[in-house]
Amino acid sequence: MAVLTFVFDLDGVVYRGSQPIPDAADTINNLKQLGHQVYFFTNNSTKTRPAFVKKLGSMGISTDEEHFMTSSYATALFLEEKGVQGKTAYVVGEEGIRVELSSIGMNIVEDGMTEHVDYVVVGLDREFNYDKMMNAQQAIFHGAEFIATNADSTFPREGGMVTPGAGTMVAAISTASGVKPTVIAKPQTPGMCEVMRMANTTPEQMVVVGDRLDTDIVAGNRVGAISVLVLTGIHNREDAEKAPEEYKPTIIVNSLSEMLEALEKK
Amino acid sequence: MAVLTFVFDLDGVVYRGSQPIPDAADTINNLKQLGHQVYFFTNNSTKTRPAFVKKLGSMGISTDEEHFMTSSYATALFLEEKGVQGKTAYVVGEEGIRVELSSIGMNIVEDGMTEHVDYVVVGLDREFNYDKMMNAQQAIFHGAEFIATNADSTFPREGGMVTPGAGTMVAAISTASGVKPTVIAKPQTPGMCEVMRMANTTPEQMVVVGDRLDTDIVAGNRVGAISVLVLTGIHNREDAEKAPEEYKPTIIVNSLSEMLEALEKK
Repeated sequence: MAVLTFVFDLDGVVYRGSQPIPDAADTINNLKQLGHQVYFFTNNSTKTRPAFVKKLGSMGISTDEEHFMTSSYATALFLEEKGVQGKTAYVVGEEGIRVELSSIGMNIVEDGMTEHVDYVVVGLDREFNYDKMMNAQQAIFHGAEFIATNADSTFPREGGMVTPGAGTMVAAISTASGVKPTVIAKPQTPGMCEVMRMANTTPEQMVVVGDRLDTDIVAGNRVGAISVLVLTGIHNREDAEKAPEEYKPTIIVNSLSEMLEALEKK
Repeated sequence: MAVLTFVFDLDGVVYRGSQPIPDAADTINNLKQLGHQVYFFTNNSTKTRPAFVKKLGSMGISTDEEHFMTSSYATALFLEEKGVQGKTAYVVGEEGIRVELSSIGMNIVEDGMTEHVDYVVVGLDREFNYDKMMNAQQAIFHGAEFIATNADSTFPREGGMVTPGAGTMVAAISTASGVKPTVIAKPQTPGMCEVMRMANTTPEQMVVVGDRLDTDIVAGNRVGAISVLVLTGIHNREDAEKAPEEYKPTIIVNSLSEMLEALEKK
């Protein structure tokens, strides 16, 4: 087998909340020993890249920031390209977005000062409330551009629990403002293309692994990579069968431990 | 002119927040003096009917509960018809919903006890937050029926401000749960038909007055009433011109003071 670049999603693939998913660490470490490249790309905007690296380390998976893409980092790269000099953003989200935007020099405004901001940046915010929604709405009414790190409707947690994802904040603010956001991370392709560039690889040699059809699998398919649906998170085999063509994974595996053999048979 | 039954919306028609809209009280009092019937039907679920009656009284409009329909009361009537014996509801909303549901004998459960409820009832909640959204989502996952008092995306306030309406809570919970709610109030017809029954009138003699095309005007048109768009709230003349047929009002007036003359010319 040629050297491949694997791009793993995190929630529902490597862990659920603080609970590691069995076989994830072993599979990933084995891939590295076999000489494959391993990258991570999560739509979860709540943490910084160093925090994710540390979390994976605690689960026996050794990596670094250079092998990491998050929806917050992808959003920062997107805004950096547009120019951040003197620009301001109102954030509905958690630490990951704030740190990534600050680190590119974006000025983040606080609640109640949203009338003249350039961007409203929205991701998962577990302290989301009516006032934040209204601040974002008013900023958009006053001309701010509406950016969403991602739009996942749900988010897998410990013990099989499924909780509201960034897509719920996006839906609320979109309804309040009458404006649809620019969505940055999966299923959109800029973040995935950046990973391809970081890994110096081609789509044919890239394997995108995820638990969601509408984000991970679509993103993989759109860039022309091999897409793998693993059934340890949100979507199941029936979801994949009923899904439109763009959502269909190249292969489906019950567990990451089956993946390499399934890829060889393909 | 024959005796007509006027059904007035409140927010954006009679007042904006605590600010009365000029001409509203005079117009309404004049209609009554001329012998017309005056009813009120608001999609606003936050207050009880007595609280709305009191608020109108403070603005010089005398009415009573028997001339009032709210989205909360319409929801209570809807659930009462299905039978409330031993049934439970989790409410995302304010006092209006809680009081109307309690008064029909519905048992309202508190946060964190949502696993085995029969209904999730959602209306405007200015203390909406992530945990309430998650409680509602989990209840729906466990089989609760998702009911929305209304789905107005926005809500007109003092000083021309437009803030998030019940539709934003509905959009968030709908995204989180993957389920669309049964919407009770305008533009749906059950509440409007109840008003027609209360007033003992026919559609031809009914005039539905509102500031929103997608709720007031559609509801009026659907029951076959005369529909009047007044431009003191959310929608303007251009919105009406661009709108699909079902959203087009019978007449458009800048202010309620022009309404009677416009109706006579019709």
